[in-house]
Amino acid sequence: MIRATTGKIEMPHFTLAQLAEKLGADFHGDPNLIITGVASLARANAQQVAFFENPKLISELEKTKAGVILTSAQLSQHSKKACLIVGRPRLAFITVLNLFHPQKMRSNIHPTVVIGENCQIDPSVSIAANVVIGDNVVIAANSIIYPNVTIYNNVKIGARVILHSGVVLGADGFGYERDATNQWLKVPQIGGVEIGDDVEIGANTTIDGGALDPTVIGKGVKIDNLVMIGHNVQIGDHSLIAGCSGIAGSTHLGKYCIVGGSAMIADHLKITDNVILAGAAMVGRSVDTPGVYYSFSELLPPAQMKRLTVRFNQLDEMAKRIKALEK
Amino acid sequence: MIRATTGKIEMPHFTLAQLAEKLGADFHGDPNLIITGVASLARANAQQVAFFENPKLISELEKTKAGVILTSAQLSQHSKKACLIVGRPRLAFITVLNLFHPQKMRSNIHPTVVIGENCQIDPSVSIAANVVIGDNVVIAANSIIYPNVTIYNNVKIGARVILHSGVVLGADGFGYERDATNQWLKVPQIGGVEIGDDVEIGANTTIDGGALDPTVIGKGVKIDNLVMIGHNVQIGDHSLIAGCSGIAGSTHLGKYCIVGGSAMIADHLKITDNVILAGAAMVGRSVDTPGVYYSFSELLPPAQMKRLTVRFNQLDEMAKRIKALEK
Amino acid sequence: MIRATTGKIEMPHFTLAQLAEKLGADFHGDPNLIITGVASLARANAQQVAFFENPKLISELEKTKAGVILTSAQLSQHSKKACLIVGRPRLAFITVLNLFHPQKMRSNIHPTVVIGENCQIDPSVSIAANVVIGDNVVIAANSIIYPNVTIYNNVKIGARVILHSGVVLGADGFGYERDATNQWLKVPQIGGVEIGDDVEIGANTTIDGGALDPTVIGKGVKIDNLVMIGHNVQIGDHSLIAGCSGIAGSTHLGKYCIVGGSAMIADHLKITDNVILAGAAMVGRSVDTPGVYYSFSELLPPAQMKRLTVRFNQLDEMAKRIKALEK
Repeated sequence: MIRATTGKIEMPHFTLAQLAEKLGADFHGDPNLIITGVASLARANAQQVAFFENPKLISELEKTKAGVILTSAQLSQHSKKACLIVGRPRLAFITVLNLFHPQKMRSNIHPTVVIGENCQIDPSVSIAANVVIGDNVVIAANSIIYPNVTIYNNVKIGARVILHSGVVLGADGFGYERDATNQWLKVPQIGGVEIGDDVEIGANTTIDGGALDPTVIGKGVKIDNLVMIGHNVQIGDHSLIAGCSGIAGSTHLGKYCIVGGSAMIADHLKITDNVILAGAAMVGRSVDTPGVYYSFSELLPPAQMKRLTVRFNQLDEMAKRIKALEK
Repeated sequence: MIRATTGKIEMPHFTLAQLAEKLGADFHGDPNLIITGVASLARANAQQVAFFENPKLISELEKTKAGVILTSAQLSQHSKKACLIVGRPRLAFITVLNLFHPQKMRSNIHPTVVIGENCQIDPSVSIAANVVIGDNVVIAANSIIYPNVTIYNNVKIGARVILHSGVVLGADGFGYERDATNQWLKVPQIGGVEIGDDVEIGANTTIDGGALDPTVIGKGVKIDNLVMIGHNVQIGDHSLIAGCSGIAGSTHLGKYCIVGGSAMIADHLKITDNVILAGAAMVGRSVDTPGVYYSFSELLPPAQMKRLTVRFNQLDEMAKRIKALEK
Repeated sequence: MIRATTGKIEMPHFTLAQLAEKLGADFHGDPNLIITGVASLARANAQQVAFFENPKLISELEKTKAGVILTSAQLSQHSKKACLIVGRPRLAFITVLNLFHPQKMRSNIHPTVVIGENCQIDPSVSIAANVVIGDNVVIAANSIIYPNVTIYNNVKIGARVILHSGVVLGADGFGYERDATNQWLKVPQIGGVEIGDDVEIGANTTIDGGALDPTVIGKGVKIDNLVMIGHNVQIGDHSLIAGCSGIAGSTHLGKYCIVGGSAMIADHLKITDNVILAGAAMVGRSVDTPGVYYSFSELLPPAQMKRLTVRFNQLDEMAKRIKALEK
C-alpha cells in the first residue's frame, strides 16, 4: 500500500466578524462567534453557517440548528439567528465554501504517475496517483488531475483545468474506411486535443483526439461525467454539457450553450451560440437560431403508450381521411 | 510487471449426493458421481451440472452432454439423466454456482493501492490493484473493490459492497453559478457519498459527491455499468438500475424501483417506491403512482419515420381541422 | 514519477518519388521534394502532404500551403501544386498516415502492469502503464492495450486487438434473482469474454462477462467510447458500434451492422446482418430485415413541443372522432 502524499488536513475557522469582512457582508449577531464550517439547513450545527435563498425552504429555516444564516436582506427577516447579509447569497456562499474547504487531494506529482517524452508540465500542476500521460503533452499552471486519468500523446491543457478520475483525453477518434474486402481499415488519428483555460471535465468522460486537426474545448467549458466528445468536435467558450451526453465527430457547438443530460448530438452539425438543448434531446440537424429545444419525451403507462404508438403509425392515413372528409 | 497476490485457484468438486445435501434437493442418479463444475446445457460435459427451467429450451435439454440436470420435479420428467430436483431451480443454481466459483480476484489490499489520511477500512475488505482512495473514507466488512476504482474524500461504504473496475465515487457534483462576467463559478462540493450494505456498482459507473449533504445509495441497491448518479441523488433500498442510465442531481428514487437501460431521469424529481421505468425512458416529471412507465420508442425505416414526423408536426392543425369538420 | 519506457520518437521523412512508389501513385512535381508529415489543407506546410477529396473544400485547396496534394486524377486538375494521384485517395491517405505515424505508446509490458495466474500473453503484445489483468487471460499477437485498462478473469483476446484506456472487459454481468425476502441475490457470472481478431474497443467502454457461456465479440468489430455491452451479447463480424450505445444482455447483433451513437438495444433480441440503426435509435424489438431504422427524434422549441405532446395524447380520441365523422 502506498500512502498518499497529502499532509494532514486542518480545517480553518473564523469569527462571524472575520467572515463578514471577507464577504463584504452586513451581519447580525455576536461578532466573536466562532464558525468552523458550512452545512445545509437540515444538518448544520451551532458552529456552522447555512445558506437560505429559497423561500420554499422556510420550514427548514425555522427548524435549523445552524449558528449563522447566510441570506439576503429581505429574507433575513424570517430568522432571529445570527445572519450574514449579502446581495447575492449564492455567490457569497461559494466564497464561504472555498474558505472552509480549500481544494483537496493535491499531491503535486504523485510517485506513481507515469509521464512520456517531451512533456511541458507547469510546476504548479497537481497530478494524483496512477495518472498516465503520453508524449508531447502540455499542461499549464494550477491545473489539477485526479487519480486514474489517462492523457494520450499530443494533448494541450490550459491553466486551472480540472480533470476528474477516469477521464481519457486524446484516445483515437472513431475513424474507419471500408477496404477492398469490405473490412474496416483504421484511419490513424494524429490531431490531438486542445483544452482551454478554466475547463472542468467530469469523471469517466472521454474526449477523442482529432483525425488531422485537434479536437478543441474552449475556455471556461464545464463538462459533466460520462460524456463522449468525438474527434474534431469544437466546443465554444463557457458552454456547459451535462452528464451522459454525446457529441459526435466534427460537430461544432457554439459559445454559452447548455446541453442537458443524456443529450445526443449527431456528427458534422453546427449548433450556434446560446442554444439550450433539454435533457435527452436528440439532435440530428444543425441549429442556427439561439433558444431552447426539446425532443419528445412523454412518459406513460404501457397500455396507453402502446395504443398511442399504434395511432402514431396511422398518422399518415388519418391525415388523408381528414382531407377526404373535407372534400 | 507486478504479480497479483492471489494464490492459485483450485476448483472444488462434489459428489451428486453431497450437492443434493447442500441444496436440500431430491436427486436421481448415482450418488457417487463426481461433479467438477457448472455450465450451460449447450456446453456442459459429463462432469458438470446444467440448469433447466425454461421449457422453450427442451431441444437443448435433449442434446445436452451434461452429467446432471438441476430442475424442478415437473420438468425433471423430460430428462433421463441424473437430476437434482428443487422447488426454485434458479435460486438453487445460484447456490451451485457459488459452491464451484467462490468470489475471485481477492488480494486483500494489493501493494499498489493508494490510501489517504484518516480512513477506516475493515481488515476483511479486499482492494485490488491500482485502486486510489482519498481521505476520510470508511469501508465496512467484506466489501470487494476491483482494480482501477477511485474513491474521493468523504465516502462511506457499507458491508458486502462490490465496486467494479473504473467506478468513481465522490467526484465533484456538477454545480456552477454564473458570476458577474457571465462565466461559470464552481460551487465546491463537500457532501460526500454514503453507500448502504449489499450494494453492487458496475464498471465505469460514477456517483458524485453531494454539494452539502451526501449523495445516498440505499442498502441492497444494484447498479449496472456506465451509470451516472448526480450529486445529492437518493436511491431507495433494493432498487435496480440498468446500464447507461443517468439520474440527475437531487432526484429521489424510491425503494424497489427498477430503472431500465439508457433511462434518463431529470433533476430534482421524486419517483415513488415500486416504479418500473422501461429501457430508454426519458423521465422529465415526478412519478407518484407505482407502476410501469414507457417513453415512445417506435423504430421504423427512414421514409416511414420521415413521413410520420411531418404528420406529427401537423398534429395541432389536424386537430383543428377535425373540430371544424364537426361544426 | 515513473518514466514511460517508450524510446524517443523520430519522425520519418520521404521524397515525393518515394511516397509515390509506396502508394503505387502517379505524381506531378519535383521527385526529390522532401516530405516530413501529413496535415489538413488548412494547417499543412510546404513539407507536408494534404488530402483533397471533397469538392466542397475547393476554397481550402486554393488557400492551402501544403507542399503536396493527395487526390484523384480528376480533382488534381484543380491544383497547380505537386500532386500524388491515386484511384482511392482516402485509402491511400490512410497508408500515408501510417507511414508518418507508426502506432505509438508501445512499451511492451510496462513495469506497473499487474497480471494474474495462468495467463498466456503473446510476447508481441504491448501493455501500457497501470493495466490490470486477472487470471486465465489469453492475448494473441500484436494486440495493444492502452493505460488503465482492466481485464477480469477468463477473457480471451484475439490478434491485433486495440483496447483503449479505461476499457473494462469481463466484469460481472448484471444478473440477480429476488430471494424469499424480496432482496436481490447475485447470480455468479463465470462465462468470461471472447474478443475476435482485429477488434478495436474505445475508451471507457465496458464488456461484461457472460453468465455461463461467454460474451462474444466477432472479428473486425469496431466499438467506440463509453459503450456498454451486456453479458452474453454476441456481436457479428465487422460490425461497427458508435459511442454511448448500449446493448443489453443476451442480444445477438448480426454481421456488418452499424449502430449509431447513443443507440439502445434491449435484451434478448436478435438483429440480423446488415442492419443500420440510426443515432439514438431505441430498439425494443428484434429486427429480421436488413436495412436502415430510425427512432423518432424531432427537435422543437418548448412551446411547440408542448402543444404537439398534448395532441399526441389525444391521438386515440382524434382517430375516433374521424371515424365518427366518416359515419
